[in-house]
Amino acid sequence: MNADPLSSATSPPALTLTLDAEGGDRAPEEIVAGALLAASPALRILIVGRPSVVEPFLEGADTRHVELVPSTTVITSHMEPAHAVKTLSDSSIVVGARTVAEGRSLGFVSAGSTGAMVAAGILILKRESGVRRPAIVTTLPGDKGPVVLLDAGANADCRPEHLFEFGMLGAAFARSVLGVAEPRVGLLNIGEEEGKGNELARASFGLLKESGLAFVGNVEGRDILSGIADVVVTDGFTGNVTLKLLEGCAASLFGRMRAAASSSWRARVGGLLLRPALRGLRRDLDPEVYGGTYLLGVKGLVVICHGNSTRRAVANALLFGAEALRKGVLPAVAEEVSRLKERKGAGEEGPEIPAAG
Amino acid sequence: MNADPLSSATSPPALTLTLDAEGGDRAPEEIVAGALLAASPALRILIVGRPSVVEPFLEGADTRHVELVPSTTVITSHMEPAHAVKTLSDSSIVVGARTVAEGRSLGFVSAGSTGAMVAAGILILKRESGVRRPAIVTTLPGDKGPVVLLDAGANADCRPEHLFEFGMLGAAFARSVLGVAEPRVGLLNIGEEEGKGNELARASFGLLKESGLAFVGNVEGRDILSGIADVVVTDGFTGNVTLKLLEGCAASLFGRMRAAASSSWRARVGGLLLRPALRGLRRDLDPEVYGGTYLLGVKGLVVICHGNSTRRAVANALLFGAEALRKGVLPAVAEEVSRLKERKGAGEEGPEIPAAG
Repeated sequence: MNADPLSSATSPPALTLTLDAEGGDRAPEEIVAGALLAASPALRILIVGRPSVVEPFLEGADTRHVELVPSTTVITSHMEPAHAVKTLSDSSIVVGARTVAEGRSLGFVSAGSTGAMVAAGILILKRESGVRRPAIVTTLPGDKGPVVLLDAGANADCRPEHLFEFGMLGAAFARSVLGVAEPRVGLLNIGEEEGKGNELARASFGLLKESGLAFVGNVEGRDILSGIADVVVTDGFTGNVTLKLLEGCAASLFGRMRAAASSSWRARVGGLLLRPALRGLRRDLDPEVYGGTYLLGVKGLVVICHGNSTRRAVANALLFGAEALRKGVLPAVAEEVSRLKERKGAGEEGPEIPAAG
Repeated sequence: MNADPLSSATSPPALTLTLDAEGGDRAPEEIVAGALLAASPALRILIVGRPSVVEPFLEGADTRHVELVPSTTVITSHMEPAHAVKTLSDSSIVVGARTVAEGRSLGFVSAGSTGAMVAAGILILKRESGVRRPAIVTTLPGDKGPVVLLDAGANADCRPEHLFEFGMLGAAFARSVLGVAEPRVGLLNIGEEEGKGNELARASFGLLKESGLAFVGNVEGRDILSGIADVVVTDGFTGNVTLKLLEGCAASLFGRMRAAASSSWRARVGGLLLRPALRGLRRDLDPEVYGGTYLLGVKGLVVICHGNSTRRAVANALLFGAEALRKGVLPAVAEEVSRLKERKGAGEEGPEIPAAG
């Protein structure tokens, strides 16, 4: 409302992000509303979608900081992602990714098909040099602060060198976005000792140990939230189960608490008195507040929102995305990758990260 | 205290179970105390351990329904399980498993090394005919009642035919122990549609679909507790992460609730009023109340308790184990396995469960 702070010398430089208006269960209305909430002189938003679908939701709004970029079709979750991205060149996801690849925007946000966003990141934005497998990184509400988890679902089948890369990507994210000087990296596993786990975890342990990262060893499921590691690395199958299980567990517990708090008059009064204090807890655990997950390891910022995202979640995803860019997440990833590639090159392991499986 | 009901015509027949007094973080004191809590004319308990270690905790107690079976050494979690079971023939786990193999007891309970219990189950009790991979089955506190999860950690690396077997074992458990007439079996996966997931999940989907079980398709992490399946099948790595993550998530949320409930006077009063209602919730989510996890698919009942088990957890594990035996869990497993083997034999797939990978 007050333009002065934004035009002052300390205001952040203006950024441009692209938003897929056609992705998500609540598209386009809530998505477009999220863009209008987040847009400002400091954050310009390219809204991609069919004009006939999007324009009604822009009518009467302040559109000074948004721009409609037309697409003609939509990729749905039921399509095979890579095939859809290759063939539907006028879809909102492909058009949106192209705005980043062409330098018109620094990042792309969508609540649409996760698989298509990963495919668009790899096929259109292209991988960061030295990265074999871009990964989805997410921030969990740990007991002592945020915990970075990856891969949360980009790579269902992984090899040990991929988990090694995830360690690098996660450390770069924790360092740049969360400001952790030397992130402690742990491997999600089913026992504390080295030598425990499945074949993938056992082989990954050795690579992470030699990685030059601050590797703290295995982290069991019960310790993910306890804060013994800043970054927890796993394959995209286990990571996606973990992320969704935490969501389900929080929902289940809040549901049971609500039931318990209406089981008697005494409990009902207690629940009312406790409600303001619990509101903060709910907010801490609300995936909407975190706004989204990032695909790291591609040339540009890719933010993948929950399919169920409301305008608030979309706005937060845009604002957090802009913040991550200002904090330098992309150069941090590039730097970490080249630093560790050099280290590997100088070590006993030879110039190549060893392949397994 | 009142002997009448136990000697009446409706009293259950006396059972014998074996307990490893030397396994678990709180051994031997809490373990032996758990045996004394659970022992009764209806449940006789063979306590395995070094006499010098166990006897002090039996002194002065009512030992009419317990018997000390001497061992000389202990297998620890740091030893390679199969090697330890093969070489330490006088260890409490091996001696205990032998009491079942020799018919002196119907089942074996331990809070010691999970790996060693699995190895002892397979090497000493032997696998049920037709079962390739015995699995650890556990019961989670779902929103609409118990949810059976397996494998919770016996097999870190699995092939699709193993997950098919887990479906059979889990269905047998749900039918006999939980009384679910036709258990709905789901596959833990990272998407709802067929074709989603890693290689293992995609191949397992096809086998489970053709299994003759009431297969309900993929279950995502967020739906494990919601009750869309009675039995959730996964590999032992993902299952173990799932089990421990739920434990960690519940602990984390209760810790945060405690903190929220002491953040102000108002919240403190609310917390006190709400406490009785939340006590039931805590109990529902307390792994001690469930008592333990079962290794299914071997000839005898094997109950693996949490390493941290108290006397209450040990007593519950013994009582639930006896109840599972009375409900016929072992014949149910044998029957389910032979029923599905026959079904497979009659189908197009040939007499063998197809092997993959």
